[in-house]
Amino acid sequence: MPTDAQQACFEAGIKFGSLYHQFAGTPVSPRSTRSLETAIAESIENQPYCESVAVDIDDEAVAADIDHENGYTELSGHLMEIDMRVAYDGITVRTRMEMEDGYPLMKLVEVVDRDE
Amino acid sequence: MPTDAQQACFEAGIKFGSLYHQFAGTPVSPRSTRSLETAIAESIENQPYCESVAVDIDDEAVAADIDHENGYTELSGHLMEIDMRVAYDGITVRTRMEMEDGYPLMKLVEVVDRDE
Amino acid sequence: MPTDAQQACFEAGIKFGSLYHQFAGTPVSPRSTRSLETAIAESIENQPYCESVAVDIDDEAVAADIDHENGYTELSGHLMEIDMRVAYDGITVRTRMEMEDGYPLMKLVEVVDRDE
Amino acid sequence: MPTDAQQACFEAGIKFGSLYHQFAGTPVSPRSTRSLETAIAESIENQPYCESVAVDIDDEAVAADIDHENGYTELSGHLMEIDMRVAYDGITVRTRMEMEDGYPLMKLVEVVDRDE
Repeated sequence: MPTDAQQACFEAGIKFGSLYHQFAGTPVSPRSTRSLETAIAESIENQPYCESVAVDIDDEAVAADIDHENGYTELSGHLMEIDMRVAYDGITVRTRMEMEDGYPLMKLVEVVDRDE
Repeated sequence: MPTDAQQACFEAGIKFGSLYHQFAGTPVSPRSTRSLETAIAESIENQPYCESVAVDIDDEAVAADIDHENGYTELSGHLMEIDMRVAYDGITVRTRMEMEDGYPLMKLVEVVDRDE
Repeated sequence: MPTDAQQACFEAGIKFGSLYHQFAGTPVSPRSTRSLETAIAESIENQPYCESVAVDIDDEAVAADIDHENGYTELSGHLMEIDMRVAYDGITVRTRMEMEDGYPLMKLVEVVDRDE
Repeated sequence: MPTDAQQACFEAGIKFGSLYHQFAGTPVSPRSTRSLETAIAESIENQPYCESVAVDIDDEAVAADIDHENGYTELSGHLMEIDMRVAYDGITVRTRMEMEDGYPLMKLVEVVDRDE
């Protein structure tokens, strides 16, 4: 049987994959970064065991990605950082997405058993 | 050669298909409807020729869709109404998504040549 | 009232926006391009008025996008060409997505009234 | 520091969330179920640590969901079962999505340390 800590990590991974593949590709410009950050966070916080989500879309990176004629780009991993906290049956899992060596990486930061 | 009015209608259709398939499936509950409406509208307004987008997610329909254990549902056509205005080269196109006979229908409401 | 040709162009746009925002972001490598092309085409051909969809994902462009450690990239407009034919009430609309000046462009190629 | 088994479970969760939110909403009919199953499996198998994915879309459930005028429905959790195997640093994780009490549930089936 999987342990509670393993279950908690599985749940944390589900939230990360959901967030990324639901919202990657969304048209974004510096005019719409704040509303998109809020909607992503509040949407994923609806999922079970998800305590908090913070999304930080980098306005300068978005602006740099935009072609002048076009006026927008598509949301992608290199344009945002994400912090997420999942709580499952006494276990808290902290995860983070950030750039590493030029690629966005989803990381399991910490697994804490609050009963210990 | 396609006419300007045909081009305008093609552009309006692109925005509708983009909106629907980018955001359908997003986890939603009555707690997150307002932020999702705003993010959808501001996101699609980034696209070329898109003058305005109004999204109205029906809180009661969302609540009715939610299973108690779960706490959220997935955004889908029967949970929202959309009004969109696209302007292309002197032509304004108004479109609308609403329920008809139990199914969400994307409608071309009006095509106006502002130069006439 | 919108004309049949305008309706047909609106429907063609919907299919294009749907295709793009449903499948952009899909993990892809040269090992999975053929199955993804087929699934995209058969999926969108289910939509009303859609006569045919051809998707051509460029294996070399996919390979060039892949980071060695990672082994895959995300499907995006610069990796594929699309041809689509929509038929609505006697009108046939041909559309195409291809790169132009470094950006993927969705184009209304031809609108033919078969009754004329 | 998270253990290898916890990392493996996190990776397994990412694949599940990715699969679901990338492909939910895809237009589907009994004519296109096989190509969609193949494309989903081959797409997610591109992701790191993902050993195998099997997707089984239920043709009868798809047909039952289809409105006659429309001819297709949107892919959703109640229309498919998924089995996935993830291998991370000596740990194998088996996961499964299936209906339970009327809702699709993503389950961590087994975590095996192959070095033990």
